[in-house]
Amino acid sequence: MPAGPGTRLGIGDDAAVVAAPDGNVVAAVDMLLEGRHFLRDWSSGVDVGVKAAARSLADIAAMGATPTALLVALAAPPSLPAAWALDLASGLASEAARAGADVVGGDTAQGDSVVISVTALGDLGGRAAVTRSGAHAGDVVAVAGVLGHSAAGLALLSADVPKDELASALIQAHLRPQPPYSAGPAAAELGATAMIDVSDGLLADLGHIAWASGVVIDVDTSALDLGSLPDAARLVPGADPVTWALTGGEDHALVAAFPADAALPATWRIIGRVLPASDPHTREAVLVDGRPWAGPAGWEHFR
Amino acid sequence: MPAGPGTRLGIGDDAAVVAAPDGNVVAAVDMLLEGRHFLRDWSSGVDVGVKAAARSLADIAAMGATPTALLVALAAPPSLPAAWALDLASGLASEAARAGADVVGGDTAQGDSVVISVTALGDLGGRAAVTRSGAHAGDVVAVAGVLGHSAAGLALLSADVPKDELASALIQAHLRPQPPYSAGPAAAELGATAMIDVSDGLLADLGHIAWASGVVIDVDTSALDLGSLPDAARLVPGADPVTWALTGGEDHALVAAFPADAALPATWRIIGRVLPASDPHTREAVLVDGRPWAGPAGWEHFR
Repeated sequence: MPAGPGTRLGIGDDAAVVAAPDGNVVAAVDMLLEGRHFLRDWSSGVDVGVKAAARSLADIAAMGATPTALLVALAAPPSLPAAWALDLASGLASEAARAGADVVGGDTAQGDSVVISVTALGDLGGRAAVTRSGAHAGDVVAVAGVLGHSAAGLALLSADVPKDELASALIQAHLRPQPPYSAGPAAAELGATAMIDVSDGLLADLGHIAWASGVVIDVDTSALDLGSLPDAARLVPGADPVTWALTGGEDHALVAAFPADAALPATWRIIGRVLPASDPHTREAVLVDGRPWAGPAGWEHFR
Repeated sequence: MPAGPGTRLGIGDDAAVVAAPDGNVVAAVDMLLEGRHFLRDWSSGVDVGVKAAARSLADIAAMGATPTALLVALAAPPSLPAAWALDLASGLASEAARAGADVVGGDTAQGDSVVISVTALGDLGGRAAVTRSGAHAGDVVAVAGVLGHSAAGLALLSADVPKDELASALIQAHLRPQPPYSAGPAAAELGATAMIDVSDGLLADLGHIAWASGVVIDVDTSALDLGSLPDAARLVPGADPVTWALTGGEDHALVAAFPADAALPATWRIIGRVLPASDPHTREAVLVDGRPWAGPAGWEHFR
């Protein structure tokens, strides 16, 4: 595992030492379980490493922080091929590097199946953290990164369609999500009032912002960049591209509220607006084109 | 989960924000699995919470740092009683509080059995980290905390002896280890040249220091404080109190090397000395009373 200058002490001692120049450290943990978050039949070790790292690193970016380090705890059965574990390490290291972070430590234990817990650390660079609770009525809502690609890729994998270029790209998006890490600190600089990464689905995660901020958020589906999703939806019986974009999780796009006069670069696409909580239209926290969403919801734990 | 002044932003957002006044953060992760590290028949939720927290917090103390925060990832089956999970949270919080740290974040997921991954963070307070690699020939080796109590407690549990006062205290030491956290930063102030927490057993963990420092360490068994271990050993066929003290892990005592002229307070008990690697007696990294140890070794993962 390569170590950059922010790693004062890396793998090999009781604990790692990581630079925290801001004087505060941002920290988040996520756990992935074989059979629930991934299948070894579908995901390579590299895929799982990338996904495990991306989930935690995106949480750091969603605070407006720059990722600095990962710690990885791995449980594995004795039957796990060593090559798979090495691929996992490779995926973790490559995604950490894409985010500018080092893998600085970890733990291993014997278990009945593969369980990976990744802790990510980050630095705010002197900025305030961007929480879920600062959105105001009148703000615009904008997204950086892709929506619905992971859900479409999972549907294509499950439907066993021919792996043409379109399908392969979306399946790749499912297996190796690529969150737009640098957009997180950039959003903080641009004045973001609230931010979250889309892990459970756009509507579910905007619901977290709306609830924490005491506002209503209205999503304009005509503003969504559906890209190749309509073409992919034609390959899967019953699929709807807008539903993928609104409820598909695991792409780890960043979605944020900004003051209406914020000068947003092309990284950020405006897809909605923040309304007061007392909006007479509804008591829902999130609206789609001005109305409550009647379709399926996003990912729920302990469903 | 109570939050002290070092927790800038606690549970409830994408990530936590924790004070890192030193400008560096110390970080370690440990994973505990039901069936391997604990049994729900023997350990209550509080017990498991205390043990999970203690393992990671002791790693922070072993660097000479003061623990500041814990992040906890939990996988649990739907059948887990809610009361057990609440007890787990209570145990985590109480042990964190004993170490001066807050539980600041986490993750939950559904799994087939209980898996707990605890990440601990800490602050060096302007001191250099005490690694495993700084021990010099001529140093003394000293221990803070108890040795062998957890191993004795596990043996007493397994032997199903009457739970008199002696047995109960050692079983309690197994179920809820109590590392001497404040001795870690104190050791750094006292000039410790190398330090580790005893998680795998004294000989195994001294072996890590000896290997990393390029030295030999000789343990004087007559200097060990066996306390009640001889009495407990009489209750368990084949048990040996010295073997418990030398090879029993999970008490999370701290063991450190100090310059021979260090003025050690009573917290630290001198139990051995550091010899040059070229010592003609042996090529073993750790000696017991001047000779290679022929008894059982400490805990090994993937055994």
